[in-house]
Amino acid sequence: MKRWRLELIALGLATAGVGWLNAQGTPTSSAAGRIRGFSAAASAAETARERDMKAAPSPKVAEADFDVMTAEPHHAGSPYEIKLADYVGDRFKEFGLEVARYEYSVLLPWPGERRIDILGPNPIKLQVEEEKLRGDQWADKPGILPAYNAYSPSGDVTGEIVYVNFGVPADYETLAKLGIDVRGKIVLARYGGSWRGIKPKVAAEHGAIACIIYSDPHEDGYFQGEVFPDGPFRGPGMIQRGSVMDMPRYPGDPSTPGRPSKPGVERLPMDKIETLPTIPVQPMSYRDAEEILRRLKGPVAPEAWRGALPITYHVGPGPANVHMKLVMDYGQRRLIDVVGKITGAVAPDEWIVVGSHRDAWTFGASDSVSGHVSMNSVARAMGEMLKKGWRPRRTILFVSWDGEEQGLLGSTEWVEDLATELSAKVAVYVNRDAGAGGPTFGSSAVHSLTPFAHELAQSIQIEGSTANTSTLFDTWLERSREQSPAKDGHPMLKLPTVGALGSGSDYTAFLDHIGIPSMDMGLSGRDGDGTYHSTYDNPDWFKKYIDPQFKFSVLAAQVTGVALLRLADAELLPLDYEAYGNQILEYIRDIEQQAQQATGASAADAKRIDFAGMRSAADAFTRAGAALRQRGESLLAGTPSAAALGDINHRLMMAERDLIEPAGLPDRPWYRHVIYAPGLYTGYGVKTIPGVREAVDAGNYARAADQATVVIRALRRATRTLQGS
Amino acid sequence: MKRWRLELIALGLATAGVGWLNAQGTPTSSAAGRIRGFSAAASAAETARERDMKAAPSPKVAEADFDVMTAEPHHAGSPYEIKLADYVGDRFKEFGLEVARYEYSVLLPWPGERRIDILGPNPIKLQVEEEKLRGDQWADKPGILPAYNAYSPSGDVTGEIVYVNFGVPADYETLAKLGIDVRGKIVLARYGGSWRGIKPKVAAEHGAIACIIYSDPHEDGYFQGEVFPDGPFRGPGMIQRGSVMDMPRYPGDPSTPGRPSKPGVERLPMDKIETLPTIPVQPMSYRDAEEILRRLKGPVAPEAWRGALPITYHVGPGPANVHMKLVMDYGQRRLIDVVGKITGAVAPDEWIVVGSHRDAWTFGASDSVSGHVSMNSVARAMGEMLKKGWRPRRTILFVSWDGEEQGLLGSTEWVEDLATELSAKVAVYVNRDAGAGGPTFGSSAVHSLTPFAHELAQSIQIEGSTANTSTLFDTWLERSREQSPAKDGHPMLKLPTVGALGSGSDYTAFLDHIGIPSMDMGLSGRDGDGTYHSTYDNPDWFKKYIDPQFKFSVLAAQVTGVALLRLADAELLPLDYEAYGNQILEYIRDIEQQAQQATGASAADAKRIDFAGMRSAADAFTRAGAALRQRGESLLAGTPSAAALGDINHRLMMAERDLIEPAGLPDRPWYRHVIYAPGLYTGYGVKTIPGVREAVDAGNYARAADQATVVIRALRRATRTLQGS
Repeated sequence: MKRWRLELIALGLATAGVGWLNAQGTPTSSAAGRIRGFSAAASAAETARERDMKAAPSPKVAEADFDVMTAEPHHAGSPYEIKLADYVGDRFKEFGLEVARYEYSVLLPWPGERRIDILGPNPIKLQVEEEKLRGDQWADKPGILPAYNAYSPSGDVTGEIVYVNFGVPADYETLAKLGIDVRGKIVLARYGGSWRGIKPKVAAEHGAIACIIYSDPHEDGYFQGEVFPDGPFRGPGMIQRGSVMDMPRYPGDPSTPGRPSKPGVERLPMDKIETLPTIPVQPMSYRDAEEILRRLKGPVAPEAWRGALPITYHVGPGPANVHMKLVMDYGQRRLIDVVGKITGAVAPDEWIVVGSHRDAWTFGASDSVSGHVSMNSVARAMGEMLKKGWRPRRTILFVSWDGEEQGLLGSTEWVEDLATELSAKVAVYVNRDAGAGGPTFGSSAVHSLTPFAHELAQSIQIEGSTANTSTLFDTWLERSREQSPAKDGHPMLKLPTVGALGSGSDYTAFLDHIGIPSMDMGLSGRDGDGTYHSTYDNPDWFKKYIDPQFKFSVLAAQVTGVALLRLADAELLPLDYEAYGNQILEYIRDIEQQAQQATGASAADAKRIDFAGMRSAADAFTRAGAALRQRGESLLAGTPSAAALGDINHRLMMAERDLIEPAGLPDRPWYRHVIYAPGLYTGYGVKTIPGVREAVDAGNYARAADQATVVIRALRRATRTLQGS
Repeated sequence: MKRWRLELIALGLATAGVGWLNAQGTPTSSAAGRIRGFSAAASAAETARERDMKAAPSPKVAEADFDVMTAEPHHAGSPYEIKLADYVGDRFKEFGLEVARYEYSVLLPWPGERRIDILGPNPIKLQVEEEKLRGDQWADKPGILPAYNAYSPSGDVTGEIVYVNFGVPADYETLAKLGIDVRGKIVLARYGGSWRGIKPKVAAEHGAIACIIYSDPHEDGYFQGEVFPDGPFRGPGMIQRGSVMDMPRYPGDPSTPGRPSKPGVERLPMDKIETLPTIPVQPMSYRDAEEILRRLKGPVAPEAWRGALPITYHVGPGPANVHMKLVMDYGQRRLIDVVGKITGAVAPDEWIVVGSHRDAWTFGASDSVSGHVSMNSVARAMGEMLKKGWRPRRTILFVSWDGEEQGLLGSTEWVEDLATELSAKVAVYVNRDAGAGGPTFGSSAVHSLTPFAHELAQSIQIEGSTANTSTLFDTWLERSREQSPAKDGHPMLKLPTVGALGSGSDYTAFLDHIGIPSMDMGLSGRDGDGTYHSTYDNPDWFKKYIDPQFKFSVLAAQVTGVALLRLADAELLPLDYEAYGNQILEYIRDIEQQAQQATGASAADAKRIDFAGMRSAADAFTRAGAALRQRGESLLAGTPSAAALGDINHRLMMAERDLIEPAGLPDRPWYRHVIYAPGLYTGYGVKTIPGVREAVDAGNYARAADQATVVIRALRRATRTLQGS
């Protein structure tokens, strides 16, 4: 589901790990010659293992694997997705892993009748279905899920159209200035500017009766480059599917919040579910949307609202008048997560988990088979290493998620299912969604992993690369600089930006619900998004435009493999709470600056937020993190006992759990992390220190003051854990 | 020729009078109840006269006048333009003015054969001619000058196309980074981003063999709003004509730089003229340009380069291969300026000159008949006042310019013709180009006129206006704030921006060649530019979309009339050299900051520029200006002698002449003003303190240091004049 290129762009705008570490100038590396978390002796062995790991992935094997996994449409609950669960399980077994399957039965709608007619002026029936390009062997395959927005309700409405740009809250402020009201209207929004689920949510809050979302060629069509089949971008009849569940409230099966969707578990009736849109939602191609847009009058759209269609964009309302009928088939569908396990030799109860989703909207060549295949390559390589006698220090779990696209179903249900065990055992979760699309590395992670991520990227060479971009660190820094260019008050970045984790992929339940240090990573190119969530994210497109030689697949396997090896074999977990704490201090400063802009009566309220207390708690957390890292480094310089290492590792694992507030965030108790959450009105986009920040955003300073005390308590808990006191 | 809306946008980016006066908060107004330059008694009489003036203009009369002046195509040298000279002269006579005609014979090319063929891939012959919309009575009129770029040479070339965006120097830096060379190629540039004449100049400097300039719908077509006849914007077949003479070197007849084009004057042979492009240049519609752009490959154009056509913009070179043949008919054409004079009663040798151009590319409904008609309304109103016994204190000249469109021909030749007399007598030149297109006022002027311009705008009410925009000051401030929005380091503007004068209209010779305080002004709307320089700048378009009731024509007459009354009748000229000096100090600071960014060896060179000396000279100038204003105000509070007033007025007039450096600017001796000039590579856009600034821009610090001494000398001369010493 994750959209790497756009996500990276969004990160450039977010406050996300840019400041403190960049001020330091270089990654805070471990003692010379040692890999972070490893003693000198262990580093030498690790270096040799990494050499083997990097040599292991084969483009040919990856392509064969890819061909199987993209051979048929395989959305969650489809026959081929169930077959692929067997396929992945068999491969894991073949590699020498212990395999387990976890099945869930989730509420999942499939699309029935969908019809959109323009009643006037100049009535026409729109195409609605995704275009089948003539001669395309993939578009004709049986079993393709028609274009729809998952979790839209059924509906039958008629109304005038209002064009709402991206359909985010700021756009409705602009509409208000223009004197335009969407009550009783159908809104037409373009994809982009936020996670799609925000669009119907905000539209409904403003009284709209339905929401149509279309792909403007400005975002991923001809404005960006040639369209498929002449290039990788989105053609006139191609449609972006996608979920519109209100995931910032909670992800997973909407009928079982906080509980696994297993037999006997309590399920909410439809009318009690809070994460379903209240109005019908349907995606559309720009071929269809242009018909509507050409029939709008009213004010010319503000310049920033205009896309790349060859028309004058008007806002409406009307005269375009549209009838829209959607019939959704809600039912229970079968979901299968497949887990392959290598039990650790020294610390079997410290788990490193890596996951990638297996399900796809259609063929999923890029999203997420490309990621899954690179994970498979790592499992295969580790299987070979096992045969040669290696065993990891910690336990490693490879997980093939199901139902990610509809709402992180597989990962959320699994985390809810095994919460107690995972809370006790998982040291780090590594996420691999789509992300073998080019040579540019990117990563978002808890900020204790920032130095680790930088060093990891430095360790991976790009084959056939130029002098300027010889490692993944270089491509990452280059892209980060493009996205946050040097300007007044912002010197040129010295380090790549490690984004803060929002949502949109399977790390969400791990981090936000139970406090597991998490890391997302991927590789992207410049042209990889044009077929996102369409029928044309298929092998032809992928092999022609994205990774013809499977070299990015190999590169992705290398970086994933080295990451897992380091995490699993390091004597001390490479978690740096000093880096984390310094980043938290920056977030606090941000929010404080924002709160200081409050005026009048609000200014007095804003003063009651205990920023000094937060700063002081974050300072203590930072110092405790530094002290623990130093203690770990002196241990590694000597001959530490297993018990001494185990004690530090335990503290490093558990400090993150302390950042979980059991009561959860205001109005969304499923989200419990006090530092990270997806924004209620941004979706994928993160809100750091969300309890305080979203209250300040909303001008609710009393709530912000309450939430500040929650943050202070959590930081103090974590500090005590780091201190071992 | 002037393009108000775009010009105003450009001003938002320029450093132009925003800083010092805005820091003051309100216009530096004269003593309470007095109009700037008037004693209390005279102010009362002036207020009454202004009331008459504002009541005088009639929409009906204006429309009748407009209908005559737009009845036929009337480019310079055409039969109807000559007829209109008689018409305007007759009107001036009828109003009671003394009329004189000034004729010149200028070198002026008319277009012959123009042919552009795409040789491949998929050969086609392009339309080249402007589209005649079916049923349009105006497009079929005989005598319309075909679409061409005046002063292009003839040529017959074949080459591959490179798309160069706006074709400004920065675009060629981008091309260099892409590894693309235009040598031997034909460049395709879009209109916008600079004055059009810069495009072939820079293209030729980079080795291109021809230049095509097209109107992208992003700039003034459907991206901005509905196209004619459904709206005011540029349709697919409409073409922008325009001059490509190198006016930043010198304007006017290219064969007689610095001399009037009269019988017997020395004329340069064609091969000695420096202001003609060296490569053929032709404008094009987007209907034709799309055919070329669709045939380009090579890199996808950078995002900022992409227009609004429904294609992927590529840079090339090729494979589009184009044959272009232009035959230009260079010949001597007849030019007629018409002058109407009202001789002053008290100070006949202090002249206030107002001018508007009569010639047009075709019908010139907006450009510049709308402006000329409002000037005619003022002449008529003053004629009525003369009949009632009023005589202005100073002499007023109304001038109807010819040949403005091809290169400010009429005004330049006239100033060169009468330079000695004008230098001695003209107190202020007021320019009225196109500019009756809406309720939004705008003005650029020498900065001694900044307070005058602000007070003038405050004095004109807009009929039927809302509370927020009841005077021209309000609409001007609103637009200025849109263009320079408040942001970090830039508080919200308190005063409208008075732009610095660049070029592009008939004030150029007055200000830049002989140092006459000048002021340009106009009214604009939001939708007025779509037919700029096309056949469709005609009465149908104008009456449907721009000024159906001729109320903006009346408003334009009111503001012009009040300006002239104030300038002509004030006991003391409303020139404030303190305001001017403070603005100059800001320009010096700007340039100094830029020079401080020089590094290495350049930094040492940059240190040799005598910024301290410039600051000190500008300080003295500023103080002398303040002292003279205070002296004037005390005089007006008493009963001053005519001699005392005359002395101050003389100093106010002549101080501007002292800012003329007789040797002129480096490499362009015709431009002699040390504070204002059009940029050599911006065209219309101003470069303030051009000798120093352009040298710093170019990293030529030795020249900058020389030019700084020129500026210091000029400021000292002017200071002595203001001091009367």
